[in-house]
Parts: sequence; C-alpha cells; structure tokens
Amino acid sequence: MSVDYQIHELGNVVLQRGATIRDCKLAYKTFGQLNAAKDNVIVYPTWYSGQHYDNEWLIGAGMALDPAKYFIIIPNMFGNGLSSSPSNTPEPYNGPRFPQVTAYDNVRAQHRLLTEKFAIKQIRLVVGWSMGALQTFHWGALYPDMMDLLAPFCGSAKCSRHNFVFLEGVKAALTADAAWKEGWYTDKPARGLRAAARVYAGWGFSQAFYREQLDIKTLGFSSLEDFLVAFWEGFFLPKDPNNLLTMLWTWQNGDISDNEIYKRDFKAALGAIKAKTYVMPGQTDLYFPPEDSEFEVANMPNAKLVPVPSIWGHFAGGPGTNPVDVAFIDSRLKELLAS
Amino acid sequence: MSVDYQIHELGNVVLQRGATIRDCKLAYKTFGQLNAAKDNVIVYPTWYSGQHYDNEWLIGAGMALDPAKYFIIIPNMFGNGLSSSPSNTPEPYNGPRFPQVTAYDNVRAQHRLLTEKFAIKQIRLVVGWSMGALQTFHWGALYPDMMDLLAPFCGSAKCSRHNFVFLEGVKAALTADAAWKEGWYTDKPARGLRAAARVYAGWGFSQAFYREQLDIKTLGFSSLEDFLVAFWEGFFLPKDPNNLLTMLWTWQNGDISDNEIYKRDFKAALGAIKAKTYVMPGQTDLYFPPEDSEFEVANMPNAKLVPVPSIWGHFAGGPGTNPVDVAFIDSRLKELLAS
Repeated sequence: MSVDYQIHELGNVVLQRGATIRDCKLAYKTFGQLNAAKDNVIVYPTWYSGQHYDNEWLIGAGMALDPAKYFIIIPNMFGNGLSSSPSNTPEPYNGPRFPQVTAYDNVRAQHRLLTEKFAIKQIRLVVGWSMGALQTFHWGALYPDMMDLLAPFCGSAKCSRHNFVFLEGVKAALTADAAWKEGWYTDKPARGLRAAARVYAGWGFSQAFYREQLDIKTLGFSSLEDFLVAFWEGFFLPKDPNNLLTMLWTWQNGDISDNEIYKRDFKAALGAIKAKTYVMPGQTDLYFPPEDSEFEVANMPNAKLVPVPSIWGHFAGGPGTNPVDVAFIDSRLKELLAS
Repeated sequence: MSVDYQIHELGNVVLQRGATIRDCKLAYKTFGQLNAAKDNVIVYPTWYSGQHYDNEWLIGAGMALDPAKYFIIIPNMFGNGLSSSPSNTPEPYNGPRFPQVTAYDNVRAQHRLLTEKFAIKQIRLVVGWSMGALQTFHWGALYPDMMDLLAPFCGSAKCSRHNFVFLEGVKAALTADAAWKEGWYTDKPARGLRAAARVYAGWGFSQAFYREQLDIKTLGFSSLEDFLVAFWEGFFLPKDPNNLLTMLWTWQNGDISDNEIYKRDFKAALGAIKAKTYVMPGQTDLYFPPEDSEFEVANMPNAKLVPVPSIWGHFAGGPGTNPVDVAFIDSRLKELLAS
C-alpha cells in the first residue's frame, strides 16, 4: 500500500506522565520545498481525530499557505491512527493500554522532527485549528524563540472546565456501549460511536447555524436527521474508539503551563510567548468561546484577537467546510505572513 | 403511603398523535385557597423530569407566588412519574409502549383539571421554567382569552432545531447502554443514565459558570468531578429511563402551532397570544438562547423581553439553585402581577 506521508522514527519516547512509547512513530506530510536559508517553514498540526489530509484545505497555490513559497509540515497528532496510537501500537501498550499523551509530548516530538530530520532552527508560522490550535499555543510557550508567527484558530491554550465537561459527555456516550468492553472491543461499538456523534453534533455548530438551517441550505443535507446520520455518525463510525479516547484525554489535559517550565502558572506561560500572534476564535464557537481567547490575548505580549465572524460555531475554522470562513482565515494568515 | 398531591381522573384521553391513554391520571398539587370570585388562580406547570415539589422554590409567603393571595396549581407533566407515565401505566401501554404525548396534550388535560374540578374560568398568571415555559406558551396560544398574564422563563414556544439536536445527544447517550434493552430494561441502565447526565452537564450551565467555578465556589461541590457525579449523575440515576424519554419526546416535539388551530403557522400562534407576557430567557442559556425569545417577543402583541442577567445558563431559572436569580425572577413576577 502506498501512503502519502513519511514516518519519523523517534525511538523510545518517555512521556510527560511517565510511560514510554517504544519505537515511537511520528507521521507527517510536507508540502513545498525547504529553501536554502531554511526560513520558509510553516508547522500545521492536526486536530481531534483529523489526519494530515484533513488539514490540506488551507494549503494551495495563491493561498497564504502556498507550497510554492513555504515548506509546510503537517505532523499527525499521537493517537490519530497514523502517528503512534492505540490502534497501531503492538502489545503490551496497544488498545486501551496506550499511554496518556499530552500536547506537550506531541509538540516535543514535532520539535524533534524539525530539528533532527530537517535541521530547522527557525519557523515562520505555526498554525492550527482546534486541537491544532492547542499545539500551536504549545509551540509558542515551549519554544518561544523559535518562531516568528502563531495563528491558533478555534482553540485554546488550556482546556477550559466547560470544554472538559463537554468532552466528558462525548466520552460517556461512547463508553456507555457494552460493545466497547472497557476498550477491549472485538466488534465495533457502533452504538457508542453514533451516540458520541450525536452529542458532538450539538456542540460542533452554533444555535444560529441550526436556526438558519445551514445543514440543509448550505451543506445540502436532505433533513436534520440526514445531517445527524450522514455527516456526524458517518464522521465518527470509521474512527477507532481507543484512538478517539486517547486524543480526548490529550485535549482534556491540554495546558501550556502544565510542565516543568511553567509549573501550572498559566499567565506566565502565556506571557512567555514571544511570537506575533493572531488568536482567532470562532465568534459562535460553543466550546472555545471568544471570552477564553480574550483572556489569552490579554496575557500575551504580542497577540491580537481576530474573531472569525461566523455562525458556523466551531466549524468556522472547520476542515474547509465553508468557503466564506476559509477565505477569512486565509486572508488573515496572508496579513500575518506579510507582517 | 401518604402523598402530598391529588389525582384528577381524566378517563380515556385521546392524544394528539392518535393513541389513547386509558384511565388517564393528572397529578397536581395546590397551594392557597381559590377565592369566591375565582380570580386568584396561578398555573405553574412542571419541567423536564421535575415533579411538583421541584417547583415549590418559587412559592412562599412574601413572594410573588404567595399562597396567602393566590390559588396556585402545579400540574405534573405526563411522563414525570406522577401523572400518567411509562412507569405507572398498566400493560399494554406501559414502559416503552407508552404513547407520544405533546405539550398540547398536557395543556388540554390541565385545562380540563381547571374547568372540571374547580370550574375556573379565568387565570391570573401561567408561569413555568423550561418545559414549564413550553406549556406556559401553549396555555397562551390554546386558550388566549383565559389568562391575564404569562411568564415563561428559560424556555421556548417551539423546540429549536439546535435544542432538538442537544436532546438527541442526551437520548443517544442514555440508549447506548445495552441494559436499556430498547426500553424493556429489567436492571437499571445506570451507565446510560450516568452518560446522559454528563452530556447534560455541559448544556445545563454556561461556559462562564464553569469558568468562574461556581460549582465549587457557590454550590459547594468539592471538585468538578464531584459536581458531575454528585449533582448530575445523582440527579439522573433515580429517574425512570422511559419516563425521561417520554418527556424528551414531548420536548423535542413542542410547538405551539403544531395543532389544528394554527396548522404549523408559528407566527400566527405567537400572534394569537393575548396575555401580557414577560418572556424571560436566561442570558447565557445554551439551549434556549435569548435570540429565540427575541423572535417570539417580536411576534407577540403584548410581550416584553426580560432576560435574566445571569451566568448560570439554563439554571438561571433553575429549581431554586441560586438566590440571586430567584430574587430577580420573583421581583419580575411581582411587577407583572401588579400590572
């Protein structure tokens, strides 16, 4: 089987919470060419359950992330099924015994990819949606001298308590299915996956999105139920449940200050980010509400709040779901890269 | 066993969607005395899963709903375990075969209670929280000449599409548990009930409520997890799952215009409500957002939008959960009753 990505072999990676992933693998895809000065690098981490191809909507000729100009690296998050994950790790660390991985662990591994594989010393921009934004903030806090620009969109530097609770609901729905068998499933826990999808459906798009019937009028589904089945259940059913739960744990425990550098001093971690940053919340995002972004920006020395004016909720930054928001984000990234 | 409520025997009730509840029972509790003129009546329907005692926080000496002045009737909603419900209806209409009951059916039965039992011709005020608000709107649309005042709070005249989706998540989580057995459970589907509780937890209170840690600082729980278990799971576990699903269906299908009078013309149904009305959304309610209330008020001839300034989300009108919002609602009801 041919694949469209590479693997960086990390060896034995000791994780922040104590376990070790042996023969740890970081899957990544690159676009464009690294120039001689090695100053055209963009890092673009993946989001919850997404794989590198789910990021490609923001890359293209004439776009801010133009492969003709930039060397764009999409590292796949641990747990997403391509990098080391419950679904592809051999016993005894397979399945539900796959260890807890933090966003810190992810970004440290990504840093190794950039430095070991490409000898990159400086990054022009780190950008990402949702959990990609979480990793973007981590890049800024863990390697504050290494990049010029940051653009986290529809995400946060720390999982809020409400966001944590929303994810508890998703997790509880998935794991209520007896077929889940505490992670040792032999048959797919389809009922749990479908339930998790329905829980997610209320959070992913805003009240106004549903009020305006954009699921039908813009996305073209034939009814609300068709949207819930075809879009949401269809999205979740192919995913590996343990992979989903690994990434969910990473999300819930995301916090740029939860490490030996910042010792849970969140303001200190935000204050250490030097890069010029556009923090771009979706204006109607229900789980990354703009208020959390305002707090972040207020505590970052070189950041600007750039809300995405959209009723698409979290999918304002969604994986290319709506052209208007894509155009907005792309134009802001162009502005940022030109600065 | 002594009980603190009465039963009004409705006989065989033919429901809007076609089934018949035989020997249908409407449980209710009254406070205060019906005066000779029969002009001191307040009707105060229950909310999702609540029973009459869950409404009592808004009743008291010196409060707007003062039993020394008013004859207050709390009718229990069908499906809540006291009025006819899956849990108390004999075979063959027991359990998951209990029929679909609409808010229209509920309010028609309540109207029979008032007219048959008490010969009441005029109501001073109908008031209710959440699904109680849904029934309050129905009172106004179905019997527009029968009351002076309406005060629906943290609820809507029609279940919005987003609200419908949120409830799909709750339902899917509950029914993902194999112990649910399509409603023919012999053991309590505790895992599903706990999952439904966790899903609900993210919706019930606002992002700001969790951000400000009011679960700990005001409600006194020892941690977020303690709040999720002790408050939310503790709330759902004693409930009968089929009862919950019956009321959930009632909620999802709530629409004051879905009947032979208004034939799904929502604006016409709103426009027919004559009562002076305070529509009181919670300012941060995630599933009854103020925008939906604004639409209602704009289409009602005698209504005023009175948002509850609170970060308690849906629990701004919650069952007496926070004194500040209780005081606000009580003072607005006093104002309304004095007008």
